[in-house]
Amino acid sequence: MSDSKVQASVLHGAKDLRVEDRDLPAPSADEVQIAVEATGLCGSDLHYYSHYRNGDIIVCEPLTLGHESAGTVTAVGSAVTSLAAGDRVALEVGLPCGSCDLCAQGRYNICPGMKFRSSAKANPHAQGTLQERVNHPAKWVHKLPDAVSLELGALVEPLSVAMHARNRANLPSGSTVLVLGAGAVGLLVAAVSKAAGQTVVIADIQSDRVDFATANGYADAGVVVPPKRPQAIEEKLAYAKEVADLVKQAQVQGKAVGEVTATYECTGVETCMQTAIYATRPGGRVMIIGMGTPIQTLPISAAALREVDLVGVFRYANCYPKAIDLIASNPAGLPSLQKLVTHRYQGLANIADAFGMAARVKDDEGNLVLKVMVDLTS
Amino acid sequence: MSDSKVQASVLHGAKDLRVEDRDLPAPSADEVQIAVEATGLCGSDLHYYSHYRNGDIIVCEPLTLGHESAGTVTAVGSAVTSLAAGDRVALEVGLPCGSCDLCAQGRYNICPGMKFRSSAKANPHAQGTLQERVNHPAKWVHKLPDAVSLELGALVEPLSVAMHARNRANLPSGSTVLVLGAGAVGLLVAAVSKAAGQTVVIADIQSDRVDFATANGYADAGVVVPPKRPQAIEEKLAYAKEVADLVKQAQVQGKAVGEVTATYECTGVETCMQTAIYATRPGGRVMIIGMGTPIQTLPISAAALREVDLVGVFRYANCYPKAIDLIASNPAGLPSLQKLVTHRYQGLANIADAFGMAARVKDDEGNLVLKVMVDLTS
Amino acid sequence: MSDSKVQASVLHGAKDLRVEDRDLPAPSADEVQIAVEATGLCGSDLHYYSHYRNGDIIVCEPLTLGHESAGTVTAVGSAVTSLAAGDRVALEVGLPCGSCDLCAQGRYNICPGMKFRSSAKANPHAQGTLQERVNHPAKWVHKLPDAVSLELGALVEPLSVAMHARNRANLPSGSTVLVLGAGAVGLLVAAVSKAAGQTVVIADIQSDRVDFATANGYADAGVVVPPKRPQAIEEKLAYAKEVADLVKQAQVQGKAVGEVTATYECTGVETCMQTAIYATRPGGRVMIIGMGTPIQTLPISAAALREVDLVGVFRYANCYPKAIDLIASNPAGLPSLQKLVTHRYQGLANIADAFGMAARVKDDEGNLVLKVMVDLTS
Amino acid sequence: MSDSKVQASVLHGAKDLRVEDRDLPAPSADEVQIAVEATGLCGSDLHYYSHYRNGDIIVCEPLTLGHESAGTVTAVGSAVTSLAAGDRVALEVGLPCGSCDLCAQGRYNICPGMKFRSSAKANPHAQGTLQERVNHPAKWVHKLPDAVSLELGALVEPLSVAMHARNRANLPSGSTVLVLGAGAVGLLVAAVSKAAGQTVVIADIQSDRVDFATANGYADAGVVVPPKRPQAIEEKLAYAKEVADLVKQAQVQGKAVGEVTATYECTGVETCMQTAIYATRPGGRVMIIGMGTPIQTLPISAAALREVDLVGVFRYANCYPKAIDLIASNPAGLPSLQKLVTHRYQGLANIADAFGMAARVKDDEGNLVLKVMVDLTS
Repeated sequence: MSDSKVQASVLHGAKDLRVEDRDLPAPSADEVQIAVEATGLCGSDLHYYSHYRNGDIIVCEPLTLGHESAGTVTAVGSAVTSLAAGDRVALEVGLPCGSCDLCAQGRYNICPGMKFRSSAKANPHAQGTLQERVNHPAKWVHKLPDAVSLELGALVEPLSVAMHARNRANLPSGSTVLVLGAGAVGLLVAAVSKAAGQTVVIADIQSDRVDFATANGYADAGVVVPPKRPQAIEEKLAYAKEVADLVKQAQVQGKAVGEVTATYECTGVETCMQTAIYATRPGGRVMIIGMGTPIQTLPISAAALREVDLVGVFRYANCYPKAIDLIASNPAGLPSLQKLVTHRYQGLANIADAFGMAARVKDDEGNLVLKVMVDLTS
Repeated sequence: MSDSKVQASVLHGAKDLRVEDRDLPAPSADEVQIAVEATGLCGSDLHYYSHYRNGDIIVCEPLTLGHESAGTVTAVGSAVTSLAAGDRVALEVGLPCGSCDLCAQGRYNICPGMKFRSSAKANPHAQGTLQERVNHPAKWVHKLPDAVSLELGALVEPLSVAMHARNRANLPSGSTVLVLGAGAVGLLVAAVSKAAGQTVVIADIQSDRVDFATANGYADAGVVVPPKRPQAIEEKLAYAKEVADLVKQAQVQGKAVGEVTATYECTGVETCMQTAIYATRPGGRVMIIGMGTPIQTLPISAAALREVDLVGVFRYANCYPKAIDLIASNPAGLPSLQKLVTHRYQGLANIADAFGMAARVKDDEGNLVLKVMVDLTS
Repeated sequence: MSDSKVQASVLHGAKDLRVEDRDLPAPSADEVQIAVEATGLCGSDLHYYSHYRNGDIIVCEPLTLGHESAGTVTAVGSAVTSLAAGDRVALEVGLPCGSCDLCAQGRYNICPGMKFRSSAKANPHAQGTLQERVNHPAKWVHKLPDAVSLELGALVEPLSVAMHARNRANLPSGSTVLVLGAGAVGLLVAAVSKAAGQTVVIADIQSDRVDFATANGYADAGVVVPPKRPQAIEEKLAYAKEVADLVKQAQVQGKAVGEVTATYECTGVETCMQTAIYATRPGGRVMIIGMGTPIQTLPISAAALREVDLVGVFRYANCYPKAIDLIASNPAGLPSLQKLVTHRYQGLANIADAFGMAARVKDDEGNLVLKVMVDLTS
Repeated sequence: MSDSKVQASVLHGAKDLRVEDRDLPAPSADEVQIAVEATGLCGSDLHYYSHYRNGDIIVCEPLTLGHESAGTVTAVGSAVTSLAAGDRVALEVGLPCGSCDLCAQGRYNICPGMKFRSSAKANPHAQGTLQERVNHPAKWVHKLPDAVSLELGALVEPLSVAMHARNRANLPSGSTVLVLGAGAVGLLVAAVSKAAGQTVVIADIQSDRVDFATANGYADAGVVVPPKRPQAIEEKLAYAKEVADLVKQAQVQGKAVGEVTATYECTGVETCMQTAIYATRPGGRVMIIGMGTPIQTLPISAAALREVDLVGVFRYANCYPKAIDLIASNPAGLPSLQKLVTHRYQGLANIADAFGMAARVKDDEGNLVLKVMVDLTS
């Protein structure tokens, strides 16, 4: 195509993805233009794809999804000195207002004026990255060193979520943590915890995911959560206590781990939040990462009376450079992140298939589905 | 009575208080013996008195209540050098194990082995201080300077709760905070916030309490919460948002305060916790002080997505000396704490009447009931 | 003058100040134009004025001084929505790079790429504010509420230094602090500490300054430091211990204060840093605010073995809005800041006289010289 | 010997070590009796041995050295339930007062009333552990799991110093740190930093030590410091800048490390502290661990103007359990601590020889001397 036209994947309704042409101007002074080559699919993308909404947020106009992306710079704006055509980069797709108190304090992730690509929260929607080329402010484009592939570059986004969670937990090396949920985000939280010298117990309802985690160095112990569907609150709490007890009895080096110092809740499921409270030691922290049930019934006294704090974790701030460094330096405790990329789809035309796979726990061959990657390399 | 006998107020069942004789040995080497002279009644005392239980904690044997006490040292153990007979003191009645991790870190308030006088949690129960004289480890007895009366010495206990809450919130001077509940604890939280140079909005369903707070320098603005009893969760959340909006519109120096940096929830009521989440700004904190509904349904995403952290506050650690200093130094921003003591009862025989008053919002003359004090001075 | 010409005070050499015409373009899209009306003179201005250098930083081209300024907006750039002509504002004159790690974390005050008006550090020098009108990025211009005069608006700059120091010390209300040096910065540190409910001991070699502080609510106790000039390091340390002992013996409410929790060192004098270390309790902090002797001989073991940390304080970050709020809300503990403005000079032609006064401790009438203000109101 | 007599190594003057009989009562109620089997020699022991003093602290009576010890419990006091005869344990030899503010906050390492075995600071001196059996409060005796040898148990003491330093630095995983000094403490700091997923540059004047560190996984890069002895302060600072530049140019994964986030100064040498300040990035920290020159001339403005904080590290608090866990769990990043034990001496009679070796950098065979261990196993 000509330089000023690009093709994009555009969602027009639930499961109604279309490939369309779009105008793309030259990058403005502070922007770079990037050929998007690798994009991971995220749970929020999948919600938009499946329901044309994400929780309370309803899509109001055609929306391009995708926000876990890496690619190659193809053009740079007149004022850009930090990047050049040919640079391989990861895109940080959230653009904060830059002038509020929270931006000033470096907490731009919770800036009320945030415009985050592929989200329908702001109006007009900030369009996502599942498009051949995009313009993006150079300030929010991070160069990848040679050692970091574009696929790992695309993983920098969810890895940043994990690092932000770890930063907010602020635990010393040597602590024991619990990760609830062994999907991509849970595994990345486990990975960065291992890289920080912490002991990790991971729990999931899928035994294959737990096995993946323990077999590949993501966790020191795994708990397969018994699949129940309690309805009444008393039953839910009893179930949560039962799961918490399984966690406390998990063995690391021949010893039961007992209560953990922090629990990273990565599922958004109410009984998991309840489990998190019961499994965490007095003075510890529950890190709330998973987005799911927005209104939850919780044993709040069991938290408060033991000073177990419930700490929100929303996206990330100032994490991309450190996430890239982590991948590049590959420290001793870090498990292989490459293994998280389990499935790949090529080209804009096949994104619906990619979402189909992303919605599954296992593929037809019985392999785990963790991170599905879309490859738009031309 | 002889030195080795004392009279105590002993609860034998709901509202069944009896004055009984007890043996009192000489203080052991590390203890002092104290004539208890002023004791404030606390909400947990009142629960035990009214129901012979406190939430899940059931009384298993006759129990002396009282834990907000000050008095005069009458004898000291052989190894005690820090105190002498005649010293006026406040008792810190919780005895932690002294050897667990949490004790080591100075977080003894959440020590699992804590024995707290007047609570039925440990077995045998640690008996409270509504007794003529008690023996107590010298380590947990704090000398009062001349400027601090015994009544204010008894207030040091709930004041320590307020200071511990303020410590955990760790806000800079100049922050704006919301206090939900204008009972004794809420007012003390407001007081220590004012002493720290913070702007305080206080809210309560009782307009008289709000008026007390604003008229006496406890708060810069007050919100009278409309008395509704929503039942369905949607109605509760709508009500909570309505109250949060009233808070945001509260005027301080001619400006609406907007979202607050921290909310101190002092009621234990579910809709108040919901209000706290909605009223607090992104990156802020909800301090959970009130004990009430142990299982609550909360808009947890509204907290987590804005990184509004829910922070437990349980009693206090290392606060007594600083609370005593605060009273003694009486800094410019501190309102009069003396005004919190609204009612007094004399003698062990009249404690049931004191509890009767403590259960009320106003007395027969229409005066607010804030802190009811039992005077055992002989 | 025409809109595109302004008069400025320009330093061409030591004590060689000239009033010159300058071109002033219309503000660019993100800028506002401000009529500078009140400017406080600062120690660094005085060093440049007296020596055409400031420590190691040598002036390389004619330099306009002044960075503590407030005024009225006269024009706004096309993209500015936050301000309008007629708004009364304080200027935050340091422009950080906005893209480095430190800017991202909200620590822009130590951004290596900082361009700070009136400083000769960057080349070309960022010109100061002693000029009739200046253009400045709207992002770094803070609106003043009606309750804050322009003179107090000019004080926001040094007040922000004090607040940044207090933020870095992060002490709870109720702490006892020592301020070394009762000049404008020391007094502002004392003021914000009082506003935060802290106990303040202030020390200075000038008894009049100490008297000013204690008479006007800036400090609870004062120490007049005996004027010695020890030369050998042993003598210096002995002197520092002697001064530290005077501090420990200072009386507040009839008690010696003993070691303090933090010392704010605002003089830059080597023996004062030594005193700070000796006067601070184990686990406390010495806040290094004063710029003076760049190489100092210190009893570093006396600090390290007691874990007394030496904490740098350089200018401020994210403090202007809170400093303005502090002045506007005028909390109970805050002394009158207006009293710090002791001398005023009108017009660009009289700035040399203003510097002459700023170099003195007292004026001819024997009045203290604290903050000298230049008034450029036309 | 009989149960009530033990032999001890007792220092009577510089290099005057004698083996003497001592009475040893049965352990009191809260104590255990321990057969000391492994004791590492520390720099402070060596100073006492060589000079009968340690810096300003002069020995006033015969003193048994040794405080890095592990052994086997031989008897327990009547109130001890946590330990039993036969337990293998590490001794935490500092006994704090337990009642001051600092003890209450968990900072018992800087308790002014600390009694630390083998130190001559308290009077009478608290005798050290180079004695066949000692009584020690059970609270300060830590059980070793089977996986931890007694020699590693003796290493828990200096390892706790390293962990306390890491705690005070409180850096996220992924940070780059500099360790100045590759002796036992510096190497342990490097080890715990590696275990926390940090990048380590280590510097020493001895190339063999640097080689040891980089060859054994203690550091990612090493800097051999050129051996100069500058005398004038200007020359010292120039030298320090030169060394700092060598650090910044050190290569990790093909890139120069640049300024580091924290420097752990483990030498106590003035030019190293100067280097630490110059090598650390703005907003970073210099951790002062090494005890050496008590009065140092430092470029304090170079620290303060960049907010590089100078943070004292004195011994440790609450670190033993975590240090034991670290050894037992042996995380991926942790280098072999066993390699630090380079020399062993058997029996009380050979301790003088052990000190002789501890004073050397290499032994006669050219092997590095890192940690010299005294084995008293009977």
